[in-house]
Amino acid sequence: MRLVQTVSELRQCLDGLTPPVFVPTMGNLHEGHLALTRQARATGRPVVVSVFVNPLQFGPDEDYARYPRTLAADCALLEREGVELVFAPAVQELYPEPQRFMVQPPLADELCGAFRPGHFAGVCTVVLKLFNLVRPAVAVFGKKDYQQLFLIRAMVRQLNLPIDILAGETVRAADGLALSSRNAYLSPEQRAEAPRLYRVLQWIGARLAAGEADLAELEAAARQSLVAHDWQVDYVSIRSQATLLAPQPHERDLVVLAAARLGQTRLIDNLELSLP
Amino acid sequence: MRLVQTVSELRQCLDGLTPPVFVPTMGNLHEGHLALTRQARATGRPVVVSVFVNPLQFGPDEDYARYPRTLAADCALLEREGVELVFAPAVQELYPEPQRFMVQPPLADELCGAFRPGHFAGVCTVVLKLFNLVRPAVAVFGKKDYQQLFLIRAMVRQLNLPIDILAGETVRAADGLALSSRNAYLSPEQRAEAPRLYRVLQWIGARLAAGEADLAELEAAARQSLVAHDWQVDYVSIRSQATLLAPQPHERDLVVLAAARLGQTRLIDNLELSLP
Repeated sequence: MRLVQTVSELRQCLDGLTPPVFVPTMGNLHEGHLALTRQARATGRPVVVSVFVNPLQFGPDEDYARYPRTLAADCALLEREGVELVFAPAVQELYPEPQRFMVQPPLADELCGAFRPGHFAGVCTVVLKLFNLVRPAVAVFGKKDYQQLFLIRAMVRQLNLPIDILAGETVRAADGLALSSRNAYLSPEQRAEAPRLYRVLQWIGARLAAGEADLAELEAAARQSLVAHDWQVDYVSIRSQATLLAPQPHERDLVVLAAARLGQTRLIDNLELSLP
Repeated sequence: MRLVQTVSELRQCLDGLTPPVFVPTMGNLHEGHLALTRQARATGRPVVVSVFVNPLQFGPDEDYARYPRTLAADCALLEREGVELVFAPAVQELYPEPQRFMVQPPLADELCGAFRPGHFAGVCTVVLKLFNLVRPAVAVFGKKDYQQLFLIRAMVRQLNLPIDILAGETVRAADGLALSSRNAYLSPEQRAEAPRLYRVLQWIGARLAAGEADLAELEAAARQSLVAHDWQVDYVSIRSQATLLAPQPHERDLVVLAAARLGQTRLIDNLELSLP
């Protein structure tokens, strides 16, 4: 496995290589990331992983400065997974000048976009830059960041990028909590409370499967149950998988998404469901 | 030479080809375009030319509907120039759904951007799409559209596209008028008047070379001389080649840019100059 930290080294390494499969990450890797690299490896292509905490996608009051950076440990894990190349550039390397060309995605005011202004423009812009550097044939994104996955798929389609996007299933702890680097911020009490987020999504899923049709009531009840346990809820929302907007009456392929905070720590999760 | 009109045909044709040199056009080709294709050919790479009148870069009151479309004649010219591939997609082919991912460029309120809201976002977005489809190693843009050339260079740099941008010199009629498809809109009287635009730029260039330091006065005098001959002037502006903003006192590499209308026809031109 090679670790490269500059654009010019990266280009050199990729020159003559089969178009790779690419897994962009912010590092601090856990089993969720490793599942993505295994999915990447199964394509048979050389696997390139990027490790980059992208300042452009953090708001001024968010956790950019304290986001965990553990490159040496990440590399040890990736080496064991058979990854060919790790690209871990410094901020100065990806942004040698202020980034003035931004990709403006749609749905910027929906779901997480409503609570993180500029977040998805920052995500789409860095992913486009990384795509242009790595030039992968395939890229893998986790379903945990559902809106991100949706927007990357749409960006690839609308900007005519010749890249297949694979979706990785969310990896969970035994108690159901979706793995996330931000889980490390939780106190023991908060960690014990955190699985409620997914349980609430499952409860909505069960009610929908049982034929409940009042989506607003389900969302409100779910929110209430979180608030009652000291969560600050950004949203709980039942959406169309196809559009990520409110579902049409006939739509069966839904996704329930939620974002809520325990103390300073913001957790997100989602649950796809296909009604019969 | 092959003419392809769909994305899938294009991808097929490009498969296995040496990374080409690309000349994007809106068709209705004149000697200015042909000079770009010759410059492209001189790279030794296969030449791909696109012919596409991009609705995204026209304002609602602009000339999208009446912009001249002359594909058969364009193909005859390009065949003679040794072009390998012409990509002339229908609007539906490049925009099968409403384009919601837009590249937002900087300098959007400067120069032509101030008078054509959304124009450069439309240009950058379609060029990025075409780059992703054609995947050229080199692309050629004319200096006639100076702000466009500046922004495309900046986009390539900021989005890490592995493409060399070549600048083509403006081709002029014997009387100095820059060649443009829009010249065809001019009445005989307007056509006789039109070379004044370039003469005014040359006059500014001569005054700057002679040591005149009051840029605002030069701009105002040039504007006045156009207005006196029935031009409606959008701007006459002396800028830095490096930033396309107002030059710093020490800057020597300048460009004088102008946009003005004769009747309904909007003409643009520019003149680079390096002060001693």
